[in-house]
Amino acid sequence: MVQGNSANPGVGNIGADIGVVGLGVMGRNLAANLADHGATVAGYDLDAGRRADFAAHVAGAVPCASPEELLGALKAPRTILMMVPAGAPVDALLSALLPRLSPGDVLIDGGNSHFRDTNRRSALAQQSGVHFVGLGVSGGEEGARRGPALMAGGPAEALAPVAPLLTAIAARAPDGDPCFARVGPEGAGHFVKMIHNGIEYADMQLISEAYYLLRNLGGFSYERLADSFAEWNRGELASYLMEITTDILRTRDAESGSPILEIIRDAAGQKGTGHWAATTALELGMPAPTIAEAVHARCLSALKDERVRASAAFPSHTAATPDDLVSSVGDALLGGRIAVYAQGFAVIAAGSRQFGWDVDLAAVARIWRGGCIIRARLLDRILAALSRTPDLPNLMLDPEISSLMTRGDAGFRRVVAQATLASVPVPAMSSALAYWDGYRSGRLWANMIQAQRDYFGAHGYERIDRPGMVHTEWKPA
Amino acid sequence: MVQGNSANPGVGNIGADIGVVGLGVMGRNLAANLADHGATVAGYDLDAGRRADFAAHVAGAVPCASPEELLGALKAPRTILMMVPAGAPVDALLSALLPRLSPGDVLIDGGNSHFRDTNRRSALAQQSGVHFVGLGVSGGEEGARRGPALMAGGPAEALAPVAPLLTAIAARAPDGDPCFARVGPEGAGHFVKMIHNGIEYADMQLISEAYYLLRNLGGFSYERLADSFAEWNRGELASYLMEITTDILRTRDAESGSPILEIIRDAAGQKGTGHWAATTALELGMPAPTIAEAVHARCLSALKDERVRASAAFPSHTAATPDDLVSSVGDALLGGRIAVYAQGFAVIAAGSRQFGWDVDLAAVARIWRGGCIIRARLLDRILAALSRTPDLPNLMLDPEISSLMTRGDAGFRRVVAQATLASVPVPAMSSALAYWDGYRSGRLWANMIQAQRDYFGAHGYERIDRPGMVHTEWKPA
Repeated sequence: MVQGNSANPGVGNIGADIGVVGLGVMGRNLAANLADHGATVAGYDLDAGRRADFAAHVAGAVPCASPEELLGALKAPRTILMMVPAGAPVDALLSALLPRLSPGDVLIDGGNSHFRDTNRRSALAQQSGVHFVGLGVSGGEEGARRGPALMAGGPAEALAPVAPLLTAIAARAPDGDPCFARVGPEGAGHFVKMIHNGIEYADMQLISEAYYLLRNLGGFSYERLADSFAEWNRGELASYLMEITTDILRTRDAESGSPILEIIRDAAGQKGTGHWAATTALELGMPAPTIAEAVHARCLSALKDERVRASAAFPSHTAATPDDLVSSVGDALLGGRIAVYAQGFAVIAAGSRQFGWDVDLAAVARIWRGGCIIRARLLDRILAALSRTPDLPNLMLDPEISSLMTRGDAGFRRVVAQATLASVPVPAMSSALAYWDGYRSGRLWANMIQAQRDYFGAHGYERIDRPGMVHTEWKPA
Repeated sequence: MVQGNSANPGVGNIGADIGVVGLGVMGRNLAANLADHGATVAGYDLDAGRRADFAAHVAGAVPCASPEELLGALKAPRTILMMVPAGAPVDALLSALLPRLSPGDVLIDGGNSHFRDTNRRSALAQQSGVHFVGLGVSGGEEGARRGPALMAGGPAEALAPVAPLLTAIAARAPDGDPCFARVGPEGAGHFVKMIHNGIEYADMQLISEAYYLLRNLGGFSYERLADSFAEWNRGELASYLMEITTDILRTRDAESGSPILEIIRDAAGQKGTGHWAATTALELGMPAPTIAEAVHARCLSALKDERVRASAAFPSHTAATPDDLVSSVGDALLGGRIAVYAQGFAVIAAGSRQFGWDVDLAAVARIWRGGCIIRARLLDRILAALSRTPDLPNLMLDPEISSLMTRGDAGFRRVVAQATLASVPVPAMSSALAYWDGYRSGRLWANMIQAQRDYFGAHGYERIDRPGMVHTEWKPA
């Protein structure tokens, strides 16, 4: 039944190390990465063309024409990596595989599943004695092939045997540390990946606003823009997204020769995970306003036709270019990024408490330093902060991180104020600054909200001078 | 079986007009309101004390000790108003009632149900030939008793017979128009109520920020604050929430004699519907960033202990009081409110398109003018705008409304910029202004986001010069 391909004809005798179901680009690239690190990989896909690609591109590949054949090709206990689209396909595959698996086998879902689905599937698999692992994979196709960041959720005893292989295929942080960790049980890995994507949405929005500000408020050429981003990328702001932004700013359209950003339509889409991150934050009662703003900002950008119509009706304001624009925008980018990471880590901590996952926040910072889209120099400081104080309530309370905020504070608020006066919309920067200012306000506006709610709904409120809820008869009869 | 109480002993002979299940404060007050308008109301609650209260407070009440007794007490076709907590209790009640109902009977859910649950229950009831109505009720306990705003979703033929009664008990707008309408089929009524609550969250946050700004940036006394809000409440900003805010600002703590806002803890909670509104907006791809900011702002306020700790670590900035602070804050309040209503109506329109509901937006504006928490003078202008142009894509595109935005534009952005410079967090005002500025920007930052997504994920992008998705090889090998 088991047939090794020509590169590794003898494998059938001993069984493959891991099976991959779903041989699209992500599945095939992960399989090739696994093979690079000495694993014999059996693969199954309904599509014969994908099976052929798998056989052709993966060293020692064991292509299988059915799930049964895949199961027969694997060493016991069997390890199967599912790389199928999130949602119904995962449930269908789980139903098909579970009756054929044995206690101790390990099923890994490497797709972008919602963490609640992963919780549910973990419980279902456990009924058959099968271990279920929800594996967040970040880094896109290239990351899958060369080294992704891997965030695993599942039983420790199930992850122990596969940890060496996952560690081997993972990205390396700049200091050589592998970007794989078990972050907690059941859906914890997919939860952390969801927050990763929320941070990604917000950081992309901040960078886009920085570009937009320098272009619209400062009138910068693309060359000068690229130079500014390249310069930032050598300092505290260094990150993968800054790096690709510099490349993008230097790229010209092959057809027209104009800077490529000039011909790209300014309407962005949004899919599941950024939205899930914002929604989950609210479900946990943990603010992540800048992640939410970033998702709403994409929706706003998608109303392109309406915006064009409105822009004709309302001419914009103009403003003089401030002298310190570049350094202020840099301050806003760094302050904004810190606020966004602070929101993301606070939501992960809230989820960990809510679901009893005991997530190691320092491990999350550690594995995000390589492979994934949001890898950034700032994560070294975050890792240091969380290593010093594992139960830090908010990253902005760490002295080293807060000193970065404080140092850039004046520039951050100056550039947001200038953009505000000049009608340049910077929703993520504004939101991040308001989060920072709100977080460090011992007294906020919410006493008014509590009074209003008590007034119209008799919800009651807490007094500042003693515990318990009280109600005021606002309009004595 | 049927027993009229002493106030109306003969009712049992002809049958009651409507049954109410769930005789908590909301159910009992709606029953009393119905009785005031000539209806004979049968009522059932598991709790004997509530049945007794119902009998004592509702003229002509027909208290029933079981669902069977209630059903027997009603005229055919029977109309039953369910006033039980949203979620599982509604499903349990529906399961209990459905087998006992006859085709043509009408079940009305007057709770705060999620519109998707109402869609599902409508389909379930229809299988038994029973009409299901999802009724959004706004105005709190007092509104229920004296006149709520009523947003009904359900079959037109089911609503026709009860419409006169619902019209009679509804609030009246200042011009005498009743605040009841069928806004669409199935979950449309609860959808509109959900967006109402989202707007309520955002308007409360804007008002709270205005108070906070005048207090922290302007050093206003509570008396001067109350005078400012009272003055605003006489003009374009007139609304119920402004009215109660003025009352709140004039109220002193009975114990200490200090202004009551000084002793109310500045930590606000958030429950379902504001969160649902923000989430649903994202599901529909329709931006409602300021509604989201308002919900996140409540979550931030709830982190009181952390905020106090952070405030000690980071002293705030100060700034001189600008001369035109009051008028600028007024501009920000009105501009912010317009942006929030624009977001809310755009989400309702998107929901109506998505679910094929054909919601009459002008009717929504009409019934929100009385009874509900967000009733405001602005709704007269919105009603006029939607009557002129029923398919207006966004309220801000109406000339009359946009002229209000334009008139206050300079003050709005000046006060947000001042607050930004002075470290006074105004997340909802900032978000509303960025929405306004973004909406009227023919070109936004999203070309950068599209370029980044194509760079790291090969998602493709649209060119501005022709249709279709293209992909760039960003780093030639």
